Amino acid sequence: MIYTEDNLKHLPSRNRASLINNCCGIRSANLIGTVDTKLQENLAVFNSVMHLGSDPALIGFILRPLTVKRHTYDNIHQTKFFSINQIPRDLYTEAHQTSAKYKKNESEFETCAIEKEYFENYTVPFVKKSKIKIACRYESEYNIKENGCVMIIGKIQMIAVDDSGISEDLWINHEKLNSIGIGGLDTYYTVKCIDRLTYAQTHQDSKSIYGAQKTTS
Amino acid sequence: MIYTEDNLKHLPSRNRASLINNCCGIRSANLIGTVDTKLQENLAVFNSVMHLGSDPALIGFILRPLTVKRHTYDNIHQTKFFSINQIPRDLYTEAHQTSAKYKKNESEFETCAIEKEYFENYTVPFVKKSKIKIACRYESEYNIKENGCVMIIGKIQMIAVDDSGISEDLWINHEKLNSIGIGGLDTYYTVKCIDRLTYAQTHQDSKSIYGAQKTTS
Repeated sequence: MIYTEDNLKHLPSRNRASLINNCCGIRSANLIGTVDTKLQENLAVFNSVMHLGSDPALIGFILRPLTVKRHTYDNIHQTKFFSINQIPRDLYTEAHQTSAKYKKNESEFETCAIEKEYFENYTVPFVKKSKIKIACRYESEYNIKENGCVMIIGKIQMIAVDDSGISEDLWINHEKLNSIGIGGLDTYYTVKCIDRLTYAQTHQDSKSIYGAQKTTS
Repeated sequence: MIYTEDNLKHLPSRNRASLINNCCGIRSANLIGTVDTKLQENLAVFNSVMHLGSDPALIGFILRPLTVKRHTYDNIHQTKFFSINQIPRDLYTEAHQTSAKYKKNESEFETCAIEKEYFENYTVPFVKKSKIKIACRYESEYNIKENGCVMIIGKIQMIAVDDSGISEDLWINHEKLNSIGIGGLDTYYTVKCIDRLTYAQTHQDSKSIYGAQKTTS
């Protein structure tokens, strides 16, 4: 099936959205937790959280156009902090439910039955069941002029990883943590580790370092 | 295991990079194909390709700082087009190998033994084995001032999806296409579809639409 720019233009908008949302591949599955200045909580599913750099430790994510109220955006502006929480296998239906349009005074932790957790020194709520929890401080934002989306950039303040899926060299095994991935806006996938490879160099093949790791861990 | 900002600062840089590269979760796995004005080919693995919008159909990806020559970046600037090619299960070692520092006059299609394909009307090379191939025209770029990364934005010109993994409503099943995901810089995962859910609405549970789809397809 080949779709040209002209074909895409004439597709029913739901079908076009489904195709284009899915064509980039598997995306990260996270819940972002925030509060406003009155400590009213918000939690929302995001499939766009991305690594931006290790030193400084930066993370980005994409917010859709601010043509309607975005509680996550407003809260981050008010209090400057947010939490990123990896969605585990057994929480995908609840995580999906956070994308419904709840009112400002409703906490998705309550409406979607997601257990929360607070850490000392951080005002934002975390998702208790998440095996990777990250605290970020708002750093800046970039307005994507082509369509009004906003990229939010945060600096990592803290990472909590469940012991069951991290090795001595601080490599995370997402299969062991039951991390999931998202396809488009509505599809959830489990992951299974095939391999971990050595740094690629010209004129020699990379080696697998996963087999050895599996045996010793 | 909890790592604070101060802990992170004092980790050996390899371990910090591994932790921070992995903590966002599973990332998309794509090969980006380009040519320069002399039609010298380049192919490189990227784990940052992201959906930005369906109408207009926009895709973004992150390039690391331009402190060294980036052939992908230079080629896109010269010829304005690039291809995005989903990495299938049986191509992950070859895809990883494209991250080695090959010279400008070496085509990764040759050095990494990846079969190429050209489509009529497009000057850029595609990866023959990829089950999702996208042609993009360069639209703009954003310089991430915090660390010198660059976000490239492209407009989709064409999408080719293998018939085996797309349904009538243009939903892509990444499990059927053998799409993989990437953890950090070195780890490859297969994916298995758990569920596809209806649009979330307040005060009613989303329903699974995957079971029905599996039976009829």
